[in-house]
Amino acid sequence: MTYRAPVDDILFTLDHAAGLAAAREAGLYDALDRETFAAILAEAGAFAEDVVAPLLRPGDREGARFADGAVTTPAGFREAYKAWAAAGWNGVLADEAYGGQGLPAVLWAATTELWASASMAFGLCPMLTQGAIEALQSHGSDALKALYLPKLVSGEWTGTMNLTEPQAGSDLALLRTRAERAGDGTYRLFGQKIFITYGEHDASDNIVHLVLARLPDAPEGTRGISLFLAPKFIPDAEGKPGARNDVACVGIEEKLGIHASPTCTMAFGDAGGAVAYLVGEEHRGLACMFTMMNNARLGVGLEGVAVAERATQQALAFAAERKQGRAPGYDGAAPIAAHPDVRRMLLTMRAQTAAARAICYRAAVEIDRARATADADEARAASERASLLIPIAKAFSTDAGCEVASLGVQVHGGMGFIEETGAAQLLRDARIAPIYEGTNGIQAMDLVMRKLPQSGGAVAAAEIGRLRDSARRLAETNAPALGASAARLAEAVDALDRATAWMQAPERDASEKLAGATPYLRLFALAAGGAGLADNALGALRSAGAAAPSAHAALARFFMENLVPAADGLARVATEGAGALGAEAEAALAV
Amino acid sequence: MTYRAPVDDILFTLDHAAGLAAAREAGLYDALDRETFAAILAEAGAFAEDVVAPLLRPGDREGARFADGAVTTPAGFREAYKAWAAAGWNGVLADEAYGGQGLPAVLWAATTELWASASMAFGLCPMLTQGAIEALQSHGSDALKALYLPKLVSGEWTGTMNLTEPQAGSDLALLRTRAERAGDGTYRLFGQKIFITYGEHDASDNIVHLVLARLPDAPEGTRGISLFLAPKFIPDAEGKPGARNDVACVGIEEKLGIHASPTCTMAFGDAGGAVAYLVGEEHRGLACMFTMMNNARLGVGLEGVAVAERATQQALAFAAERKQGRAPGYDGAAPIAAHPDVRRMLLTMRAQTAAARAICYRAAVEIDRARATADADEARAASERASLLIPIAKAFSTDAGCEVASLGVQVHGGMGFIEETGAAQLLRDARIAPIYEGTNGIQAMDLVMRKLPQSGGAVAAAEIGRLRDSARRLAETNAPALGASAARLAEAVDALDRATAWMQAPERDASEKLAGATPYLRLFALAAGGAGLADNALGALRSAGAAAPSAHAALARFFMENLVPAADGLARVATEGAGALGAEAEAALAV
Repeated sequence: MTYRAPVDDILFTLDHAAGLAAAREAGLYDALDRETFAAILAEAGAFAEDVVAPLLRPGDREGARFADGAVTTPAGFREAYKAWAAAGWNGVLADEAYGGQGLPAVLWAATTELWASASMAFGLCPMLTQGAIEALQSHGSDALKALYLPKLVSGEWTGTMNLTEPQAGSDLALLRTRAERAGDGTYRLFGQKIFITYGEHDASDNIVHLVLARLPDAPEGTRGISLFLAPKFIPDAEGKPGARNDVACVGIEEKLGIHASPTCTMAFGDAGGAVAYLVGEEHRGLACMFTMMNNARLGVGLEGVAVAERATQQALAFAAERKQGRAPGYDGAAPIAAHPDVRRMLLTMRAQTAAARAICYRAAVEIDRARATADADEARAASERASLLIPIAKAFSTDAGCEVASLGVQVHGGMGFIEETGAAQLLRDARIAPIYEGTNGIQAMDLVMRKLPQSGGAVAAAEIGRLRDSARRLAETNAPALGASAARLAEAVDALDRATAWMQAPERDASEKLAGATPYLRLFALAAGGAGLADNALGALRSAGAAAPSAHAALARFFMENLVPAADGLARVATEGAGALGAEAEAALAV
Repeated sequence: MTYRAPVDDILFTLDHAAGLAAAREAGLYDALDRETFAAILAEAGAFAEDVVAPLLRPGDREGARFADGAVTTPAGFREAYKAWAAAGWNGVLADEAYGGQGLPAVLWAATTELWASASMAFGLCPMLTQGAIEALQSHGSDALKALYLPKLVSGEWTGTMNLTEPQAGSDLALLRTRAERAGDGTYRLFGQKIFITYGEHDASDNIVHLVLARLPDAPEGTRGISLFLAPKFIPDAEGKPGARNDVACVGIEEKLGIHASPTCTMAFGDAGGAVAYLVGEEHRGLACMFTMMNNARLGVGLEGVAVAERATQQALAFAAERKQGRAPGYDGAAPIAAHPDVRRMLLTMRAQTAAARAICYRAAVEIDRARATADADEARAASERASLLIPIAKAFSTDAGCEVASLGVQVHGGMGFIEETGAAQLLRDARIAPIYEGTNGIQAMDLVMRKLPQSGGAVAAAEIGRLRDSARRLAETNAPALGASAARLAEAVDALDRATAWMQAPERDASEKLAGATPYLRLFALAAGGAGLADNALGALRSAGAAAPSAHAALARFFMENLVPAADGLARVATEGAGALGAEAEAALAV
């Protein structure tokens, strides 16, 4: 189960499906030419292949272990993490002022995919640290920034996000962790947090916990939540980790997957109060969280792409080797990849992976546009485009991660059910991504309730226009290798257009929109993913000629003719399905 | 995670969706009235709830263990199995001549569902024994029957199926296990078999292995395979287990799920040859296997129904208790079942489970018709109907098992990823069922290549006519509670009709049909499952009145308005998707 970092595929997708080549022509990435991009990704790919990927199976078998308040990561994780941080990979996105490299979001996204393909459990720790860095960069005081950011950016220290409590998961209004003012400008925290990724571990010198908690005089609900920073070791003025803070890991979870990543229960303040520092303003903690939400959700979407990519690579290798049954052109038993049904599975895997990647990287390009432009209107427009795409990128990609990993098990037949093969682990690892960082149901709600109405619906309309352009260009090409792709994509865009109009009709009430949100998101993803693969195919045909065999053209055709035809049915369900979810359904929901 | 055996649901589905009430009116089940059915299922349900279901979680944690050639089942399994056999449950289907109860296939099917819901790992052992019983009943010599059947039927001995070898999985033509004639009418076996369910264990006094092997003068391929019986202990003439045979378990697999069920590697003949007896004729072993294939595949389909049922029960209970977020009509946080998107997941779970159950039980009724009638033509027609439905029942139900169990994880949010919750185990257990007993891809091939052409296409045509009748009756009812169900179902039947005509067109070549087989099977299942839920809804409306709230009507409406609209897209993919799988796709399949 070797891993080959798909650097060329990523670069091609960035250029074409994600629109990076056009953005570069418009001057967006002028500090970085394509060769520099390629060199950085090649280096990251080599690290992912050589250092991280070999940890995947042993990390799963050994798992993170808990004893006496301490967590031990599996053999090799600590060393790999330190080498990774020493190579500067943790600072890709961070400000140069704090030792970061200030590189574009697309490079952060691409490297995030690579680490997660190599080992999702490994890649999670940096993903959380990145969230802490962003929260501090945007909302921390200068003192906090000066003390914490250099160490977080270098990766010497890692970060965590402490949101969930037993009674407060998706609904943060219910959280109870208590913060008290200590009188000296610092705070003390009291309470228990659960599901804290890398809340405790042995790979870094300090752990910086970002914690949502409630001050005594806080208003009820989400407007009474503040964000605090509570380090494991309280640093001195030079940033040397000092006294142990009153924060303890009291246990880790036994999970379906990502066994190497410790999921901790954290107790704050059992011995008098955990020393903490306010980040941003009192009672404005959730607003601070929203700052990093786009990147965090995109990062989780990329985990879906990453696991799908690795599952696809493994299934393709197995299907090329494993010989069962007869097929035309083979003497004796044929490789199972020659059987049409297995081919359908393999192409479904590769096409879904590519479509999810296209959507994620497009979102990353929009994040870069928003960061790079000096024009406030342009920045807002790009930011809104990114915001529209993020819930689609997160939900579709993580669903694709599970679907593709499950197909990977199926391609392996009986061997797929045996843990040694590794296919099953990918399914187990992938299964968390549709849940955390906002469940996919919440992404769908976010899409229809918050993102479609942006700028009076103009953002969604423009995006749909962009997808229609892809379909039109595809039709103009008229390449035989693309079969009926243009027609299928155009129909999907029409279906999306109808469903979007339905969602935005003034008479539509919230419960109707919410009932159709998940099929609507899937419909949007099929159209957007299809357009992305179309752009890739057009790019490949332009450079190699319409007659050359092209993986991009073949994938686009497969996606359009075999997956996109679901679009009409999804539009129908999104707009006509709500009636079946109403009060009369209660009888069918009896426990 | 308690389990409530859905006896009333099963009885209702049997009567309506499966057509048992009509069959009873036609005299098919005249020896058994509905009350007797209900009493038997109530008793089985109580046993499943009280004795087997509590073993599910501990059996998974402890797993079957292997040491020194012996397998130890998890604590409680041995005792539960013995109590289960003593209560007579193993003999439900078997001939009364050998101590069986000779009950209808529908009761075997319903009890199979109950055991597998309680613990799929537990239910597997009897399922394999049942296969051995059927093979012997149909093809064994009188001597073999007299010696082995009483013990297998009572459950004192268990049975296994030894087909797979490392190089021979779906393709049995490649198998190499060697059989030699001993000269005294017995045989000696030499070779290794893998993935042998309950190949070795501690719950029964003897294990009867049915083994596919090749005689020295056998023709190549599948026409050179013979079926043998090789017991673990060679019984004396009175059936007392005697000398240990040269059959050994040399290891068990570490699997994704069904941990309590030992999956054994079996070595035959390492010490001179395993004593074996021919079942049926030499070189006709595969034909013997076909005898039991219908029931075995239906049994695995029922495992899908079973796990889906248990996952649905658990998710419904969780969603009724867990409170997050606001919803109309609730003060404070609402149960998550009140949120439209969670409701969509719960109804998808329940509706898919019910549709899969309807298809499986309809197949069982057809098996009963074939067994019960004295008219050879009627028997053949019923048998062909069962044969048509079996691959759909197997593949759709086991896919539904995985999809529903995965939704079950999702409904639980973060808790779903924690093993203690139990939701994840159901996904792990369910994942094998689309693979074994003929992968779902092979079911789809079987459907389009072998089953559609039965009687020149008349069987499929009649079945589609039957589904159309359900849609027509639904339309005539015109009950508001059913929404647009009739129209959606009629469209799905039309789509199935079109795709079936395409599959049967004389100019269609095999590779085109095979390319569309999986989406075609899914399409057939949506129409057949929809018709089943329609029949249930019509039954409920007839007995309770159209105005009464009805779980059956609500489920039918949800299925028809939210899942069946995929039918058109599936028909399109089944009939237009093959072009994207051809030679030009090679470029996209590069490893």
